[in-house]
Amino acid sequence: MSQPPASPADVPAVVAALLASYRADSRAQHIDKRFLPSREEIIECVQILLQLFYPGYYGRQDLDGASVEYHVGVLVTTLRDKLERQIENCMCCSDESTGSRTDVPRCQRRSRELTGTFLARLPEIRRLLVLDVQAAFDGDPAAKNLDEIILAYPGLLAITVYRVAHELHGLGVPLMPRIMSEWAHAHTGADIHPGANIGESFFIDHATGVVVGETSDIGARVKLYQGVTLGAISHPRDAEGRVVRGQKRHPSVEDDVTVYANATVLGGATVLGKGSIVGGSVFVTKSVPAGNRVALEAPRLRVAHEAAPSGAAEPEF
Amino acid sequence: MSQPPASPADVPAVVAALLASYRADSRAQHIDKRFLPSREEIIECVQILLQLFYPGYYGRQDLDGASVEYHVGVLVTTLRDKLERQIENCMCCSDESTGSRTDVPRCQRRSRELTGTFLARLPEIRRLLVLDVQAAFDGDPAAKNLDEIILAYPGLLAITVYRVAHELHGLGVPLMPRIMSEWAHAHTGADIHPGANIGESFFIDHATGVVVGETSDIGARVKLYQGVTLGAISHPRDAEGRVVRGQKRHPSVEDDVTVYANATVLGGATVLGKGSIVGGSVFVTKSVPAGNRVALEAPRLRVAHEAAPSGAAEPEF
Amino acid sequence: MSQPPASPADVPAVVAALLASYRADSRAQHIDKRFLPSREEIIECVQILLQLFYPGYYGRQDLDGASVEYHVGVLVTTLRDKLERQIENCMCCSDESTGSRTDVPRCQRRSRELTGTFLARLPEIRRLLVLDVQAAFDGDPAAKNLDEIILAYPGLLAITVYRVAHELHGLGVPLMPRIMSEWAHAHTGADIHPGANIGESFFIDHATGVVVGETSDIGARVKLYQGVTLGAISHPRDAEGRVVRGQKRHPSVEDDVTVYANATVLGGATVLGKGSIVGGSVFVTKSVPAGNRVALEAPRLRVAHEAAPSGAAEPEF
Repeated sequence: MSQPPASPADVPAVVAALLASYRADSRAQHIDKRFLPSREEIIECVQILLQLFYPGYYGRQDLDGASVEYHVGVLVTTLRDKLERQIENCMCCSDESTGSRTDVPRCQRRSRELTGTFLARLPEIRRLLVLDVQAAFDGDPAAKNLDEIILAYPGLLAITVYRVAHELHGLGVPLMPRIMSEWAHAHTGADIHPGANIGESFFIDHATGVVVGETSDIGARVKLYQGVTLGAISHPRDAEGRVVRGQKRHPSVEDDVTVYANATVLGGATVLGKGSIVGGSVFVTKSVPAGNRVALEAPRLRVAHEAAPSGAAEPEF
Repeated sequence: MSQPPASPADVPAVVAALLASYRADSRAQHIDKRFLPSREEIIECVQILLQLFYPGYYGRQDLDGASVEYHVGVLVTTLRDKLERQIENCMCCSDESTGSRTDVPRCQRRSRELTGTFLARLPEIRRLLVLDVQAAFDGDPAAKNLDEIILAYPGLLAITVYRVAHELHGLGVPLMPRIMSEWAHAHTGADIHPGANIGESFFIDHATGVVVGETSDIGARVKLYQGVTLGAISHPRDAEGRVVRGQKRHPSVEDDVTVYANATVLGGATVLGKGSIVGGSVFVTKSVPAGNRVALEAPRLRVAHEAAPSGAAEPEF
Repeated sequence: MSQPPASPADVPAVVAALLASYRADSRAQHIDKRFLPSREEIIECVQILLQLFYPGYYGRQDLDGASVEYHVGVLVTTLRDKLERQIENCMCCSDESTGSRTDVPRCQRRSRELTGTFLARLPEIRRLLVLDVQAAFDGDPAAKNLDEIILAYPGLLAITVYRVAHELHGLGVPLMPRIMSEWAHAHTGADIHPGANIGESFFIDHATGVVVGETSDIGARVKLYQGVTLGAISHPRDAEGRVVRGQKRHPSVEDDVTVYANATVLGGATVLGKGSIVGGSVFVTKSVPAGNRVALEAPRLRVAHEAAPSGAAEPEF
């Protein structure tokens, strides 16, 4: 005869306690609510957009002049249907969660309009992306050709998704832009808020750790390297100590600026002037005049001969 | 007639050499061994936990007050079965790899107990997570609502998996906590060791590059920004030069501390006192008293007018 | 009767505009071209290699002394077929995109040869990887055993893919090495260019944000922590202002060097001498003599008592 089980899990008690926790607090649950966008469908929209922006590189590879029209037609139609559905969901979900009356027919009509407006912008977005591809090639001596950049450069993927999310953000679509940009962040390590404004021929090398805040303004032909933050200095709070939303908190970066690896540039009043260069690891909270470069002074380093006695901790530094 | 193939691969020779390499060295292979946890099953446990913590946001979306009980019941039952199996695997695998006698019935009994204990903790873990969601909203002016945080904030995903992994780590489950935390690291860029202690209302913004070491102690209402390391200064070694394991090597961070982007705080004796603030890019190896803030002095920068002659290298800095 | 749809998307116009954009500019599209490697197939090659390097940890788990031969035989055969096909694609694609005449039979023959040469190197690559696994265990006090390192250490995954990509890069295979290394970058946060030279017993802890540039030279027993950049100071340009490709732009790191978290080491003439140590967050553009260590001076910090009046912005720093 088998041994009795040792303290098995009390499943009914766990279930009851979880249900009680859902009932006790309305936060962090989505029960008895009707609307939520589908992350999977939204990511599929991104995948279709990649196929439209870079035909033959993403999705079907055997495209020729004859087949490409049908291919693109199917993709745009599918994209339209998915976007209409998900934008509607995002709008209804947003109304529902702010306690507004959820007017489904209004969300539906508005979603149709916004989808049409967004799709009409695709050629212009693609124009910008071709310039971004070229900027990556021009800026990186390790790049062998444009194929490599489209197939393997995380910075380009981050910028591509940003340009889409920014467009949707500008149209006032809730939730969807942020879900898209977070997908790109997870895949590339670059976190570009959809609200940022970024000019043409933008290049991000290596991408990991780049953060571009919501109210950043970036000009044309700007290059950022890994680990660069364009962030806020501090968060203004109201009399009740609550964070104030919607102010300019992040830097302005003018045309032709380069910011090297791991530099941190903070503040809504900070301007990196046209053509300026920010050196690696520099921490900047004041504006840099046009045409200037800022760099760390030759760092004051302590250099010492390493002679850690065996068995001791390595020397502190 | 077709040309003879040019130096085709000598598959049998390659196979023989690989087999010889497995025979020659017992490391980095898992042949003739019986136990190994399944990464896929462990990640499925994480996915189920996300559904239980944030019902309606992850997994099924159409939950209502009537269906949620059955839904949760199925999830908890499935989770129990998977956890019992994988915790057993982890324990047997750990015994096997340390050369201990593998007592399968003991692993089985112990796994049942630990699974029961862990499941009973779920409501408390969820209580903490709801506070973490709220802390993210309160701390980030770019956040529009709680939906956005649950659907798209990598910091919350990292914290969620950490709270699960920490619980299992505290119960002495081998391997599984680290597999979970590494999955979160890959998805979010934040590497929080399951051994760290972290209080309630924890917020990590942007997440990429955050590292929280194994013996860190973090209080309540702490905020970390991207790129923050809570790390070790050095690794003590024994008389044979081997790293000593199990000492307090990482900082203590008291309640209400904020550490801004890319700051590095090192050392097991370093304490960031209650309410202190560590500025961006600061490198700290000494304690900071409660209520104080440390920041870089206005950085000593070399500013120079940029006038690189065409054809020359860009100026060094 | 239902309302007429509000400004629905004009799909034909969008399709026509996208097609016009493809016709107007040959960049960022792959239409009417015959050759492109399959990213999916290349990643499958990486997955098979992981199974061959770490048998029983990746892929099938129930391997024993009898079954392993057949298992390995099937894997190597499958790998050979996929590699021959994809290396051929990479070579033809590269010819096609540079405008060279695409000589398919030549690509095919050459791909066979290169595949054979690469496969013959697998045992040697595996020998190096076993040393890397051991180096991770020896270097990290938080590591419990080798299983944990193989199952959950992102640094090891990054190094594994690097060693494969480096071999293919050395054989002159275009595109494939970079696609592999970018896959690893996305999964681990470490971006190691396939062109870098890296000696044995290499350890990367935490991995996020590590960048190792194309022309870096790294000796044996080197340790890098999260956020370390081995990068270029500047990009030399020719008289037309175009970036010059193919020069030594990244540092040399001799045997037994350790570079701690978030340090940045730049320049093709910069040498970190044997046994030297670079402290956390240090910015280095000059060589460090053998046996020395460089560290930030006790950072000059502004410490101030925090007394932000309620309702005010947090104090700037």
